[in-house]
Amino acid sequence: MKRREIKKILIANRGEIAMRIIRACKELGKKSVAIFSEVDIDGVWIRKADECYPILGDPIQAYLDAEKIISLAKKSGCDAIHPGYGFLSESAEFAQMCEENGIIFIGPKPEHIALFGDKTASKKAMKEVGVPVIEGTEEPINSLEEGLKAAKEIGFPVIIKAAFGGGGRGMRIVLEEKDFKELFESAVNEAKKFFGKGDVFIEKYVNNPRHIEIQIIADKYGNVVHLRERDCSIQRRHQKVIEIAPSPRLSDEVRRELYRIATKAMFRLGYESVGTMEFLLDDKDNIYFIEMNTRVQVEHPVTEMISGIDIIQRMIEIAEGDKLIFLQEELNFRGYSIEFRINAEDPNNGFFPSFGKIKKFLAPGGPGVRMDIGVYTGYTINPCYDSMIGKLIVWALDWKGAVNKARRALDEFYIEGVKTNIPLHREIVRDKDFIARRFDTSYLNNKLETFNLQAVNCLLEEEKKIDEITKMIEKIKSSKLNVRV
Amino acid sequence: MKRREIKKILIANRGEIAMRIIRACKELGKKSVAIFSEVDIDGVWIRKADECYPILGDPIQAYLDAEKIISLAKKSGCDAIHPGYGFLSESAEFAQMCEENGIIFIGPKPEHIALFGDKTASKKAMKEVGVPVIEGTEEPINSLEEGLKAAKEIGFPVIIKAAFGGGGRGMRIVLEEKDFKELFESAVNEAKKFFGKGDVFIEKYVNNPRHIEIQIIADKYGNVVHLRERDCSIQRRHQKVIEIAPSPRLSDEVRRELYRIATKAMFRLGYESVGTMEFLLDDKDNIYFIEMNTRVQVEHPVTEMISGIDIIQRMIEIAEGDKLIFLQEELNFRGYSIEFRINAEDPNNGFFPSFGKIKKFLAPGGPGVRMDIGVYTGYTINPCYDSMIGKLIVWALDWKGAVNKARRALDEFYIEGVKTNIPLHREIVRDKDFIARRFDTSYLNNKLETFNLQAVNCLLEEEKKIDEITKMIEKIKSSKLNVRV
Repeated sequence: MKRREIKKILIANRGEIAMRIIRACKELGKKSVAIFSEVDIDGVWIRKADECYPILGDPIQAYLDAEKIISLAKKSGCDAIHPGYGFLSESAEFAQMCEENGIIFIGPKPEHIALFGDKTASKKAMKEVGVPVIEGTEEPINSLEEGLKAAKEIGFPVIIKAAFGGGGRGMRIVLEEKDFKELFESAVNEAKKFFGKGDVFIEKYVNNPRHIEIQIIADKYGNVVHLRERDCSIQRRHQKVIEIAPSPRLSDEVRRELYRIATKAMFRLGYESVGTMEFLLDDKDNIYFIEMNTRVQVEHPVTEMISGIDIIQRMIEIAEGDKLIFLQEELNFRGYSIEFRINAEDPNNGFFPSFGKIKKFLAPGGPGVRMDIGVYTGYTINPCYDSMIGKLIVWALDWKGAVNKARRALDEFYIEGVKTNIPLHREIVRDKDFIARRFDTSYLNNKLETFNLQAVNCLLEEEKKIDEITKMIEKIKSSKLNVRV
Repeated sequence: MKRREIKKILIANRGEIAMRIIRACKELGKKSVAIFSEVDIDGVWIRKADECYPILGDPIQAYLDAEKIISLAKKSGCDAIHPGYGFLSESAEFAQMCEENGIIFIGPKPEHIALFGDKTASKKAMKEVGVPVIEGTEEPINSLEEGLKAAKEIGFPVIIKAAFGGGGRGMRIVLEEKDFKELFESAVNEAKKFFGKGDVFIEKYVNNPRHIEIQIIADKYGNVVHLRERDCSIQRRHQKVIEIAPSPRLSDEVRRELYRIATKAMFRLGYESVGTMEFLLDDKDNIYFIEMNTRVQVEHPVTEMISGIDIIQRMIEIAEGDKLIFLQEELNFRGYSIEFRINAEDPNNGFFPSFGKIKKFLAPGGPGVRMDIGVYTGYTINPCYDSMIGKLIVWALDWKGAVNKARRALDEFYIEGVKTNIPLHREIVRDKDFIARRFDTSYLNNKLETFNLQAVNCLLEEEKKIDEITKMIEKIKSSKLNVRV
């Protein structure tokens, strides 16, 4: 295969991941081109990219307009597009269009994106390459009768999932047969609304599993390497909130088995670029493959922290036709890393998104703290987009140190002007079960009502302290003055 | 030995190192007590410590007033004092006073501080434990006659150094005999002025050496571990500007020899806590011990980055009587780390200190970037103290990646209101000799005049870009409006 150097990359995304990719471009000496919707003119990635182009009109459509984006890439002389996560990142059509237009799509091959975009097809394919797949319907279903029949065969509890979606949309857990009809219909309706297709599939519901995922990186020459696992069990409504690498509660035996399964499957498939195989683990350590994400993930930084591998940079090099520059056995993993998704939302109001201007943004710093953030003091959060404004990532040599680090860093974090989920994170890192590594996907649901989610205004407390000290000093000085007089 | 838990630590320092120690305290669950001089009321460490106490009067003396500091420690119920670097950190008397007052001094034993505070005595001691010491006078000298006699015996070029000082003060290089008288007298005068004693010693001058230092960490039980070396060859007037771990230009043979020398010497000495043995290496890889720093150093973060060891936390645990929690062979070093000292000084005006209010402080972020900073937007830099306002530390898996990371991070760094040496750092990381690892202590002196030290106002450039885009968007929209009409 011929190596094709990438000189200029269009970043078909926004926010913190656009910044992340721009930083990788700068470090690799590649030019970066940003796009942005009209409401995103404040975006920090626009300032930092070498060039930037607005896509006017609907602010979400701006990042989904494949034709416009490809035409901008060509016009600005880009030889590649990085899709980030979300938006067009898992569109096989878009990847195909890039290829047809002579632009390198920085990601997997279109056929693999297509395969894993179809959850039923991908489960079939994974079964064939030896992956333990959760019991369920092999074909998408959209009639109640078929659904009920399948559910009875699998046995309750079951979970209904949108066949062409993700992020918890169109997803329902059915514990008993009597609730099936109502939940099936609402799942189908939600799937139709969000993904255009009402197809769902039904699978065995694993009660309170752990969510463990394996990061894969593979070049165009069949070299597949895993970068160990992430534990993403801390979720709220099927949305990840905290991610950890490696999992602090996984036996080495199970860990090895997951690495074997994932690398073998990706090798057999001829997968390239980066990807993540997601698994559920029940309390008996049974492994169930649930899905594969054919893109870089929000939580990739925790893997970077423990492996030292810059996933975005290596992803770009793989797209250029480079061989992986490291062998599996050369990787040197170290310590624990925890990522906290910082969402502009009100934890005291059902985590409803919070919009408006960030009046003050004081980020934590010091050893073991990484900030992947897309906002700043003065930035206005727009209700059009996802409420995640960035991530705080911490690292330490052991689990206890990582939790201590997280507690310290979260206490330093101060955001004024919008509500955030920082109070939730602060409670989690002080919770004895979290500290003792006792958590699965049911953790947050069980804990939420015991948490105090009131924001602590540390800045106000500091100001008070300084005021008191200033008064005290004045008092001392005036008393000294009096003595002298 | 009985373990004595530390519950509350007074930090006898200011600025970024005070913040660094407070963070360590918070992560270890220990209370922290800050002190501050009157002019330091804006200091971020005052806000972040659990308690804080002013020491009125002379702003430098505030951090040197051993009696006052110990009395504050006792009054506030501290069981330990961390001295940081500078100020009282290398005062054996202070360490002794702490001990006598039942307060744990977080650092080496007073006798070792005293030994290494006296450069002639320490060189003698090091010779005895097998360390290759640079040829020179064994006793302090203060008469011109003795000095000239010694210099002739050693052979020119020689270097004159203050016996009770550091930081380049009272230091003179004498290339030829004819210059000896004048330079000797000015060295003695400077030593008197800065350190109270005019004693100097004279040693062989190594031309254009590399400055390589070994980080040692040792517990109270004779367990000595090294955390590899730092290359601090990038200096301006004997002051370190950039520090790198590990050295990017050291053969494994020499590296091993340095580790052997350092650990063996510290083991034989019965040294405890952290310390750094500084060596010069000439172009034939001859090793010359120059001095030992019996404290944590400004540049300790680069070692933390490659080793994953939190030096300050481990230093506190050692003071409590803990055994080292790791064996030498368990340490897992990875990648390269570079530290850039951020000084408030004007590189276009002889690096003269720059004072005043920081109007804007935009710190770099993202992967591989660590900020150890003592200032913030709105902070006023006081002329009383050292011009170093903090450090930018970067890490990557290889040397090239670390330099690329540094370039990107320095470009993101924006400080308005005071002049800084960031333009100097930006030039260094773009210099082909630095990139190719070709540098020794003569590097900066040779390069300075070829560098462009004009600050680049990246923020202004960004604002211009955004203005242009905004205008462009308005134009597009008004033309569309016209079409519609």
